Amino acid sequence: KEKAPPTLDTSDPYAGDPLRHPALKVNSQRPFNAETPPELLTESYITPNPLFFTRNHLPVPHLDPDTYRLHIVGPPGCESLSLSLDDLYQFPKHEVTVTVQCAGNRRAEMTKVKKVKGLEWTTGAISTARWTGARLCDVLAQAGHRLSESEAHVCFVGLDSDPTGTAYGASIPLAHALDPEAEVLLAYEMNGQPLPRDHGFPVRVVVPGVVGARHVKWLGKVSVEPEESYSHWQRRDYKGFSPSVDWDTVDFDSAPSIQELPIQSAITEPQDGETIEAGEVTVKGYAWSGGGRAVIRVDVSLDGGLTWQVAELDGEKQRPRKAWAWRLWQLQAPVPAGQKELNIVCKAVDDSYNVQPDTVAPIWNLRGVLSTAWHRVHVRVTP
Amino acid sequence: KEKAPPTLDTSDPYAGDPLRHPALKVNSQRPFNAETPPELLTESYITPNPLFFTRNHLPVPHLDPDTYRLHIVGPPGCESLSLSLDDLYQFPKHEVTVTVQCAGNRRAEMTKVKKVKGLEWTTGAISTARWTGARLCDVLAQAGHRLSESEAHVCFVGLDSDPTGTAYGASIPLAHALDPEAEVLLAYEMNGQPLPRDHGFPVRVVVPGVVGARHVKWLGKVSVEPEESYSHWQRRDYKGFSPSVDWDTVDFDSAPSIQELPIQSAITEPQDGETIEAGEVTVKGYAWSGGGRAVIRVDVSLDGGLTWQVAELDGEKQRPRKAWAWRLWQLQAPVPAGQKELNIVCKAVDDSYNVQPDTVAPIWNLRGVLSTAWHRVHVRVTP
Ligand SMILES: [Mo]
Ligand SMILES: [Mo]
Repeated sequence: KEKAPPTLDTSDPYAGDPLRHPALKVNSQRPFNAETPPELLTESYITPNPLFFTRNHLPVPHLDPDTYRLHIVGPPGCESLSLSLDDLYQFPKHEVTVTVQCAGNRRAEMTKVKKVKGLEWTTGAISTARWTGARLCDVLAQAGHRLSESEAHVCFVGLDSDPTGTAYGASIPLAHALDPEAEVLLAYEMNGQPLPRDHGFPVRVVVPGVVGARHVKWLGKVSVEPEESYSHWQRRDYKGFSPSVDWDTVDFDSAPSIQELPIQSAITEPQDGETIEAGEVTVKGYAWSGGGRAVIRVDVSLDGGLTWQVAELDGEKQRPRKAWAWRLWQLQAPVPAGQKELNIVCKAVDDSYNVQPDTVAPIWNLRGVLSTAWHRVHVRVTP
Repeated sequence: KEKAPPTLDTSDPYAGDPLRHPALKVNSQRPFNAETPPELLTESYITPNPLFFTRNHLPVPHLDPDTYRLHIVGPPGCESLSLSLDDLYQFPKHEVTVTVQCAGNRRAEMTKVKKVKGLEWTTGAISTARWTGARLCDVLAQAGHRLSESEAHVCFVGLDSDPTGTAYGASIPLAHALDPEAEVLLAYEMNGQPLPRDHGFPVRVVVPGVVGARHVKWLGKVSVEPEESYSHWQRRDYKGFSPSVDWDTVDFDSAPSIQELPIQSAITEPQDGETIEAGEVTVKGYAWSGGGRAVIRVDVSLDGGLTWQVAELDGEKQRPRKAWAWRLWQLQAPVPAGQKELNIVCKAVDDSYNVQPDTVAPIWNLRGVLSTAWHRVHVRVTP
């Protein structure tokens, strides 16, 4: 039997998505993906909630906080937990300042080398917030989970899903989840407010030092499994490959899922193509590394990488092994007399002395993830 | 009053140094510093003891195993331990396969950019052994040490010393030392044999994933302090700086001491300047990363970095988070027809997706440490 074609409102699974701040730079409306504009990104150490970059894979679900339940699957022979928000509030409240970065941040620079599949993020798929919630280790312990001899994984399932019912999912190693020093959270507050709908209301995972894709939003279910999540986003995406690998030759099982991210930095001011005045230039940007590794230095060049100056690091001091948040940085430097243009470059170093690669092409990969080459900005100088 | 000039034998503090394997490539006789030749380096996953690279800062002390005592300073109000070798054997015996790399490995490539202070290591200041001993965490616990709220450091003092009595010393964070998963050892065996004199007989520290400089040899004393070791080698050496920093401007306190090392790889076959036959080329080398990060891929280029092929990883499979040992790798590839020369390049990736930088100059530093740029080898092809 035939039906009248559905109206846009009822057929569009994205019709219930929340309103967004107009300053966000939108890369995709359905699902909604938008980055923080560079000039706002380094305006403040903590990104205001409405300006926090948004990376959705599916429509934003409507969840009722009164009936919301988080399902924690127990170990074999144990009962599972079904936690209301109030139940979650009973666990010790833990706050941690964490920078979240999309694996695809700065993908647009990779696209310039050779086309890749993915959203055209520039430098703004990264933001920082103070997250508050229960520690995942406390909740897992309550459910009866202990560290096992064999490698195991904590699998997260979101309450967002596509029309076929496939939900977003991802996993992290159990050893990581159970380490209290890793500070993995089931977060219900972001900068002192309940999570905004775009950021996982009412509960999301926050995995400090790890790629955003594992910070599962609208969290519905947590289980401990012998294998990583079988989701597309764990097994077929968010992995890095050699530049020689293309869509005809890729073996997704040959690369590990991205967890900790490598050292990253970018220039937010001035912007590429800008014209600046002679005299003095102020260069600003951010730097961050995964795995709790602290940023120890940012080098800035005004001559395309021939000579370097050390930038000043701003923002909060970082704790050893738990440097989960970025450092903002800046450099005031004289513009060399008579210079008509500047090729500004930045590169950062973390406390394992990891550095960024010089160029994009040798780290190019078919999904355009892990784009961490030196960031380069070309500006003209008014005479 | 005058004395007859001393004979060489009695005045030379190095006269008692052990005999060494003639295959070692000597960089310095006094103190003795020598690297494993590249063609032997990747001959076997485990480096034979006589071929293990040697990095001595001072003369090799003569220590009597029967009277040897290791002094473990207790926490305030507790007694110290004075451990004989037999005492140390009573702790659970722990074995771990660990690659040790000198911070100055591949320094010779940095020297080509601009002169640096330090030994001219090529690619052989790295080796791998199975180390056996007591876990440092067990010994520290026995002495009454617990993890403290404030950051603290475990300081090691060697029994080697210069004519003024200054001994070699270094430190690692207490949190690292007390973590059983970090597998820090007080090692008394190397590949199933008592430690050779050049490698710290009778006891040395082995800190998996950390720069060789912290693996203190001929260990005499262990203490827990609120600050890092005040030794020259902790505070004034083994640190990385911007290429813009020279000996006139260096502020040693501005950089952290090197602990975990960044991703590294090098080609051991063919060697630079060699002539190879047309047809097929076999490229061999090693790859290793600090901090227990596993090597997940090695890319090899035959055209200076324009195109890449993925090498085959050999050697033992690595444990998650505890990948303390290197991967040997090789690539068999056809030599492109008509090619008169090859610019062979390798670069490795670790499981945090850290990569090596393309070139040396932007990571140049005044001490020539952390030389991890792509390794490049130029060969001629016989027609
Ligand atoms: Mo992402
Ligand atoms: Mo060293």
